[in-house]
Amino acid sequence: MNIDMIEDAAARLKGKARRTPLLSSPFLDEIAGRRVLVKPECLQHTGSFKFRGAHAAISALPAEMRAKGVLAYSSGNHAQGVALAARMHGIPAVIVMPNDAPAIKLANTRALGAEVVEYDRPGGEDREAIGERLAAERGLTLIRPYDEPQVIAGQGTVGLEIAEQAAECGVSEAEVLVPCGGGGLSAGIALALEARAPAMRVRPVEPAGWDDTRRSLEAGRIEPVPPGAPVSLCDAIVTPAPGRLTFPILKRLAGPGLAVTDEDALRAMAAAFARLKIVAEPGGAVALAAALFRPEAASGETVIAVVSGGNVDAALFIRALERHGSRV
Amino acid sequence: MNIDMIEDAAARLKGKARRTPLLSSPFLDEIAGRRVLVKPECLQHTGSFKFRGAHAAISALPAEMRAKGVLAYSSGNHAQGVALAARMHGIPAVIVMPNDAPAIKLANTRALGAEVVEYDRPGGEDREAIGERLAAERGLTLIRPYDEPQVIAGQGTVGLEIAEQAAECGVSEAEVLVPCGGGGLSAGIALALEARAPAMRVRPVEPAGWDDTRRSLEAGRIEPVPPGAPVSLCDAIVTPAPGRLTFPILKRLAGPGLAVTDEDALRAMAAAFARLKIVAEPGGAVALAAALFRPEAASGETVIAVVSGGNVDAALFIRALERHGSRV
Repeated sequence: MNIDMIEDAAARLKGKARRTPLLSSPFLDEIAGRRVLVKPECLQHTGSFKFRGAHAAISALPAEMRAKGVLAYSSGNHAQGVALAARMHGIPAVIVMPNDAPAIKLANTRALGAEVVEYDRPGGEDREAIGERLAAERGLTLIRPYDEPQVIAGQGTVGLEIAEQAAECGVSEAEVLVPCGGGGLSAGIALALEARAPAMRVRPVEPAGWDDTRRSLEAGRIEPVPPGAPVSLCDAIVTPAPGRLTFPILKRLAGPGLAVTDEDALRAMAAAFARLKIVAEPGGAVALAAALFRPEAASGETVIAVVSGGNVDAALFIRALERHGSRV
Repeated sequence: MNIDMIEDAAARLKGKARRTPLLSSPFLDEIAGRRVLVKPECLQHTGSFKFRGAHAAISALPAEMRAKGVLAYSSGNHAQGVALAARMHGIPAVIVMPNDAPAIKLANTRALGAEVVEYDRPGGEDREAIGERLAAERGLTLIRPYDEPQVIAGQGTVGLEIAEQAAECGVSEAEVLVPCGGGGLSAGIALALEARAPAMRVRPVEPAGWDDTRRSLEAGRIEPVPPGAPVSLCDAIVTPAPGRLTFPILKRLAGPGLAVTDEDALRAMAAAFARLKIVAEPGGAVALAAALFRPEAASGETVIAVVSGGNVDAALFIRALERHGSRV
């Protein structure tokens, strides 16, 4: 993994992925006590950054292999990213999804033309085993959600844009708070910033109870989430452990990690609604939550927060606004 | 009024106003039956396009005049735009606002550093008379919300961006649906497109019952809203008549006008939430509503809809999602 792979991914994504803007609000600056710049990847195609990695990986495949189609297992956002990227390439996509994923994510993935295979997550079925069997049977190429160099490279294009857009705002030094599941987005951004904005540092942010990356960075080795972790609203980023490819990158370049409560994620969703006019999902809002409500955990004059996705059901968004909408 | 004024405004706004992206979703294309491109000015500073015109007008004032401060009367979005633009210039701003404006708009305008003078709109007080008196007393310069060449030029920068961004998508020919109150945004965009994308045409969109511009374009002369018009949720664009400067521009370059119901505006807000991950206010959503739910009223392969603002109270946004959130 190096900056050239990220630049190559950016070249393939040009005109395909959306260049999301860098947003800000004096009201958010006041809450955080420092300047807050927000990279809203909820405005990306399919409503999350995942489209970048999916498109980067699919576009990097040899043509003959790509033509047979791709497969992904995903709680939702990666699924939509792979489905749209596959459709753009005119190839089949099969997505293995948990049967308890948010309804909007299942429906959207199907509507984007993918074949959805549901598995019984609460019942303990193993999505990786199902995915690998399907891939073998049909000659599909598995597009892993994060532990895949081309996916990390694609997510890294977010970091290239942050470096450029922050420089346009006169900012070269900042902590960059990134919602973290398996670590693909955090690792990709960290690699991009190492080359293009070396005075910036990635701080992975996770949901309380699912802070395996935070604990792993502290321990210096992969520490999975222990059994019996609480249910989190942040479905997009509840992964059991950092990846085998992503963790070494994060260990070298990122941290310390942060964890925020579901309640603070909802509060950040309400703040993003009121002050930025964007829709964030709970898992997508954890970095903004840390920037706004854990200011003591960051340092520097400016903090940059990535809002990684916005695929949230209306009912849950209403809940965030009802609880926090009049107080942010 | 000509394209040079708009280009000059764009040069003054560079690095000050946000270049909003051009968004799209295959789900919206399916509803409309054609390609839909959305220009989300809700992502502009202060949550609406009004910042552009306010900054363009204030930055065009002679320095000595500007230093004394500015005044505006506004139902809300123009107020916030003037307040922030004045603060950026380090000058005082006095805003005359109706006492029944949405709470968020009154509070935000004060928080942006402006002095707010409330007037009794339901009681029939005349905001223009109050504004002119204050301007005379304190030496303030009145920044009109739409009937002011520099304001129209500032709003026209939206049109320059649409022309450039649509060209990047391979689109040179389209109807451009624009939420219309006094007509400053519609007129500015129309002038910009005349010069930079002559195969595009502005279609002003208004709330049902407040379709003075639609009727005026049909009649060929200014036809105000008759007394007793219904209350509309689209507070940002319920103006009694097109402007004396804006109407001749619209008559020459734009139309026919369109009108949509409040219910369709709420439905478009829910669609923008689900498919674009942006927050639109009712008045800001009327053009998207027309693009999605009045497809027979537009023509061509592509329609472009401006979402002009996103300053909506949580309670009203919840109402839009409760009514339409699961069906878009």
